[in-house]
Amino acid sequence: MIDGHKWFTTGADGAAFCIVMAVTHPDAPPHMRASMFIVPMDTPGVQFVRNIPVMGEAGSGWASHAELRFQHCVVPESALLGGEAMGFAIAQQRLGPGRIHHCMRWIGISERAMDMMCARAVSRVSGGKPLSHRQSVQNWVAEGRARLEAARLLVLETALRIERDGSRAARAHISMIKFLVADVMLDILDRAVQTHGALGMTDDTVLAYLYRHERASRIYDGPDEVHKSVVARQEFSRWEKKK
Amino acid sequence: MIDGHKWFTTGADGAAFCIVMAVTHPDAPPHMRASMFIVPMDTPGVQFVRNIPVMGEAGSGWASHAELRFQHCVVPESALLGGEAMGFAIAQQRLGPGRIHHCMRWIGISERAMDMMCARAVSRVSGGKPLSHRQSVQNWVAEGRARLEAARLLVLETALRIERDGSRAARAHISMIKFLVADVMLDILDRAVQTHGALGMTDDTVLAYLYRHERASRIYDGPDEVHKSVVARQEFSRWEKKK
Amino acid sequence: MIDGHKWFTTGADGAAFCIVMAVTHPDAPPHMRASMFIVPMDTPGVQFVRNIPVMGEAGSGWASHAELRFQHCVVPESALLGGEAMGFAIAQQRLGPGRIHHCMRWIGISERAMDMMCARAVSRVSGGKPLSHRQSVQNWVAEGRARLEAARLLVLETALRIERDGSRAARAHISMIKFLVADVMLDILDRAVQTHGALGMTDDTVLAYLYRHERASRIYDGPDEVHKSVVARQEFSRWEKKK
Amino acid sequence: MIDGHKWFTTGADGAAFCIVMAVTHPDAPPHMRASMFIVPMDTPGVQFVRNIPVMGEAGSGWASHAELRFQHCVVPESALLGGEAMGFAIAQQRLGPGRIHHCMRWIGISERAMDMMCARAVSRVSGGKPLSHRQSVQNWVAEGRARLEAARLLVLETALRIERDGSRAARAHISMIKFLVADVMLDILDRAVQTHGALGMTDDTVLAYLYRHERASRIYDGPDEVHKSVVARQEFSRWEKKK
Repeated sequence: MIDGHKWFTTGADGAAFCIVMAVTHPDAPPHMRASMFIVPMDTPGVQFVRNIPVMGEAGSGWASHAELRFQHCVVPESALLGGEAMGFAIAQQRLGPGRIHHCMRWIGISERAMDMMCARAVSRVSGGKPLSHRQSVQNWVAEGRARLEAARLLVLETALRIERDGSRAARAHISMIKFLVADVMLDILDRAVQTHGALGMTDDTVLAYLYRHERASRIYDGPDEVHKSVVARQEFSRWEKKK
Repeated sequence: MIDGHKWFTTGADGAAFCIVMAVTHPDAPPHMRASMFIVPMDTPGVQFVRNIPVMGEAGSGWASHAELRFQHCVVPESALLGGEAMGFAIAQQRLGPGRIHHCMRWIGISERAMDMMCARAVSRVSGGKPLSHRQSVQNWVAEGRARLEAARLLVLETALRIERDGSRAARAHISMIKFLVADVMLDILDRAVQTHGALGMTDDTVLAYLYRHERASRIYDGPDEVHKSVVARQEFSRWEKKK
Repeated sequence: MIDGHKWFTTGADGAAFCIVMAVTHPDAPPHMRASMFIVPMDTPGVQFVRNIPVMGEAGSGWASHAELRFQHCVVPESALLGGEAMGFAIAQQRLGPGRIHHCMRWIGISERAMDMMCARAVSRVSGGKPLSHRQSVQNWVAEGRARLEAARLLVLETALRIERDGSRAARAHISMIKFLVADVMLDILDRAVQTHGALGMTDDTVLAYLYRHERASRIYDGPDEVHKSVVARQEFSRWEKKK
Repeated sequence: MIDGHKWFTTGADGAAFCIVMAVTHPDAPPHMRASMFIVPMDTPGVQFVRNIPVMGEAGSGWASHAELRFQHCVVPESALLGGEAMGFAIAQQRLGPGRIHHCMRWIGISERAMDMMCARAVSRVSGGKPLSHRQSVQNWVAEGRARLEAARLLVLETALRIERDGSRAARAHISMIKFLVADVMLDILDRAVQTHGALGMTDDTVLAYLYRHERASRIYDGPDEVHKSVVARQEFSRWEKKK
């Protein structure tokens, strides 16, 4: 029997079933407390409350994040996914690769925004010369390119380490790219918007969409603050041993 | 007869008339080229194209920014506002006060975001303690408060100078607050969103709305880059005389 | 009898006496543990170890920071300053005004660096035009001026509050200017150095001296981190009551 | 016959000879105007003015930067280095590799500063817990590590491109690492100083030396501003062709 309240259930709208991670062993050590279950959306007690509006858009279908309630929701034993108390272990296996996948996507978004910023800068004339002749715009483009190249290489290095050493060993690298690439992307998006002026605020280009929705990159799959603490702990650990 | 294409006509949707600033004396010096006219929206040739969608919202009524077209639109002499070729002069008179009004509004938005950030930080427990016990959140709140107090005082000083010396004499101060207060506000909004986590991305609080729409503060009424160049020119002018 | 090891004793080199703050009541509450004593430098047991070299300069006379050792150093009862266990109270009385005095000095240093940056920018020609025509330099000057004006007003507001309400009531304001003005000054100094190019690195101008020595502004009289936590606590306190 | 005034002649103090780059063909295109000469320091007319004091230290021997004057200084034809008007070509050949060498050195300095920051953070107890338990210090270490790993990879990528495609083809990459690695290093040094508190200001560790002298990294071998404009031009060039 499942009781609970879940926020940001991506794609619940229109889904046939959901995977629920529920505490089944409350007294076990933290990483052994939860189990996963496949729960059909039409199970009695599963209530689809709403698609949560995010940055102005509630979304629908796969592009949505639902609020769900589970009230005395009975699921059979066969619904169990991967063994009792294995919820955390299963989730972890997905999260490392999930995070690098986000970073790869952000590199792509950053490239697209760089392209749009450059194309705009060479074509838009203001005060008698193209924006590309303004030193501020040149600085934005140069800093964006340098940071983006460096970030891309760190993502590739991380991918290599995941493949070679496994997600667990590459954990600090995964945390590093999680906050570094998000920062690089948001900075480039901000400057691409500025280069487009009022047009950058409109939905006549994709920039305004990316500007508002990709802000979530610093929050989902662990906020910056958590990932920074993971990296710091690993750095300090080498020195604590030497003491 | 007016021909033209105007973007971002605030509140044109549902308006009875608009004020058109048109070039009437193309060969005059730049600040003597334009005149202003009152043009009823039902004048033949005035075409309401659409409300431009901005950061996901097309808006309506006064909260909208329309794209308008004027094609061979005939207006009588009586439509002239404030004298021939006086368009620039009239607009300037409004822009100084208009800009400080925005800055005052941004101070208010910043206070509201500070309140929400603090209220959230003391009430939200994560990892066994409230967010307000985390040094990162403390830094955000302290830096936000310090920068906001300093910015507020500069807005008040600018208001004093406008009243005492006039908009023109206070021009560099108006430019300073235009880019400084926008920067302070956007920074506070960004941190308030981060403090709220996923909730900060939703429209369940006002923060997501402010985050995406107030980004325009660095663009409208002159982008940051123009205002910085105004301030720099004034700074340099004292030294150019001494050379 | 005093035993101890003191770092950064400003002006000990050449001094006739020093004021020692020593723990005399180790079991009292923290703010009642220390007393102050006037100790002649020639008291047996007072050892002047060295002037500590800071950013390349050991200094001498009043412009120095000494390492001192006190070994079984006997002082008479008449050496006591202001009452037993009053050390903390006396020190606090000085620290609020001491901090705003630093901030005022930093405003002055910032003005001097702004002057030097502007004078250099209008006179130095590179690539066929003066540096003052480069947008990057314009941005540095404009941002510096805006932040400096805002910071100055916050220092004045803090002075007013100290006078009107006392140091204690103005505590959060004193902390705010401590980290805000230091940040503004160091940023302006950095940009003034960059505007001077290689000359900015030399001791042919005062900038290199200020660049390296004023870095201490973020450390002495409480590091940034402590002052930010003071401000944050005050902000949060209003919300904790409302809970 | 050579006449001129040269600043920042590294290692002139104690040198047997210097290499002079002099304009010999003033009417040729810019890159064909200068020739290089080997000039013994005891040649009549060569005047060693002084070692220029940089950030508090005049230096001596190889660790110095001299001001030299050349007055009617006669050199024989055999002093010519590498052919008439070849000065620019010779210098360019050295500058690409010279710049990446600096970047490699800065990576090393950054690693050293990271080590010192971590070692200090785990050993220094303040307010009852080690600095490594403070979130601000954790953020500094995590951000430093992430940016440093990314920067290192970009330096390696640049080295690969120089080897594979030549300095000229790798020009934008060389410019990118020139300003990116300097920025990463100076940021890490600043935070390492802060982590050490007052000790970080003293010459009891190497940090204060690095903090003040490595500031030059953003100036020598081309200031940031020049390298950013190189990168921006290359970015824009792809888009200008498409117009």
